[in-house]
Amino acid sequence: MSELLERGIKVLENQPFSKLLGAELILLEHGKAELGVDLRDHHKQQHGFAHGGLVSYLADNALTFAGGSVLGNSVTLEFKINYMRPALGERLLASASLLSSGRRMAVCECRITALHDGVPTTVAVAQGTICKVETE
Amino acid sequence: MSELLERGIKVLENQPFSKLLGAELILLEHGKAELGVDLRDHHKQQHGFAHGGLVSYLADNALTFAGGSVLGNSVTLEFKINYMRPALGERLLASASLLSSGRRMAVCECRITALHDGVPTTVAVAQGTICKVETE
Amino acid sequence: MSELLERGIKVLENQPFSKLLGAELILLEHGKAELGVDLRDHHKQQHGFAHGGLVSYLADNALTFAGGSVLGNSVTLEFKINYMRPALGERLLASASLLSSGRRMAVCECRITALHDGVPTTVAVAQGTICKVETE
Amino acid sequence: MSELLERGIKVLENQPFSKLLGAELILLEHGKAELGVDLRDHHKQQHGFAHGGLVSYLADNALTFAGGSVLGNSVTLEFKINYMRPALGERLLASASLLSSGRRMAVCECRITALHDGVPTTVAVAQGTICKVETE
Repeated sequence: MSELLERGIKVLENQPFSKLLGAELILLEHGKAELGVDLRDHHKQQHGFAHGGLVSYLADNALTFAGGSVLGNSVTLEFKINYMRPALGERLLASASLLSSGRRMAVCECRITALHDGVPTTVAVAQGTICKVETE
Repeated sequence: MSELLERGIKVLENQPFSKLLGAELILLEHGKAELGVDLRDHHKQQHGFAHGGLVSYLADNALTFAGGSVLGNSVTLEFKINYMRPALGERLLASASLLSSGRRMAVCECRITALHDGVPTTVAVAQGTICKVETE
Repeated sequence: MSELLERGIKVLENQPFSKLLGAELILLEHGKAELGVDLRDHHKQQHGFAHGGLVSYLADNALTFAGGSVLGNSVTLEFKINYMRPALGERLLASASLLSSGRRMAVCECRITALHDGVPTTVAVAQGTICKVETE
Repeated sequence: MSELLERGIKVLENQPFSKLLGAELILLEHGKAELGVDLRDHHKQQHGFAHGGLVSYLADNALTFAGGSVLGNSVTLEFKINYMRPALGERLLASASLLSSGRRMAVCECRITALHDGVPTTVAVAQGTICKVETE
């Protein structure tokens, strides 16, 4: 396991909200991050699909990790998400990639995929801006 | 309590994810919805603020309720959120309002406010599209 | 006319694209900006409405002016726009307001209104991030 | 030239705003559209770059064509754009692709590239929702 991924996993472990939701950091390399979560009943909305709020959490956090992989300690300034299909299945994956970066900011995109009986379907797509946290 | 709010509270109760996060529907009227959540440790990220994923969940869900108040059974097609300040305090409130609606779709906006020692601060703002679920 | 508005008008005059489109800066004060354009045939799309590209130009530029009114020389990092109704009439107005600002960045929102026989209709709403241009 | 592209070119020719800006439809196939514009002085802002409004026009219109290639007569409901670098050079290209589509709506993304001495640089990225125009 790379040092970057190890550090990322520690960051995620220090996010109580991510533990509550059961998210795992699967991949973290320069300009790329992937989060996964095994879908359980407490992730669902009233129709039995994964709640949009879970999908947007994954997008937000994967975007931050992808941006943070080049900027260091970072936060999401803003993002936009389009839900394309109901998120149904046994697992969700959020794969974020860096599109561009400067000294302080990065633009990243993210695809969220549902695995249903192992078959992947893209359920949402997001795009956002990540900003380095300045510490003086 | 209005019938609309009563029905909304039932919808929220049927969302296991919303129960996991502890969200309450405080207000639901024609074109308006307000969700609240008491901040607890499991809502936080590594710096002690409410996780962006919680804020985006509140935005997403409040937008859906505001749109659904005029469209009926609805889903969020897409939304965009700008995080403006760290979400810190004892409670978060998400207030969503209808900006326009047609037969099938509505555009709504949402302000997310943190109450810190009772003092409100707007911490994020969101805008999105809600779509009626067609049932044939 | 305030000094701020005078300076803003000069900035707009130095944008050849804004002259091509016929935009005027009507108001510029701390945290507020308003752009207007008289609708002419060359602003339209194939159905006779103002083209979405004109509406998004107005949103983008009004957001930048509103952010720039507190940050100084600025650019739009990103924005999102929802088109709500066809933009029809004799004039479009884009009114942008500051929602929050820091040392380097600001979040602004914008309503775009069409005047049809003098009657205003909100046709689009936008939200975006403005960033100070650092000059060293 | 395909029939789809021919029809698309006619739609663009019927948009006076697109003629004012000098846009050309270069490619239109199932789920894909590309618009180009030769940069001229009247496209610029005060720093000599292509105006963000031109870039957002291209994004908006390319998204609509990509969605319309599968939906038929369509409009852009909403989109979001991140400006990543100054748009500088002799030509801008906006390439949009379909990410998903239903009976009435499609989600598309768009990359905007500047050609400077023939060298391409991605200057902006956009994502949006396209909606079929229902005609009864």
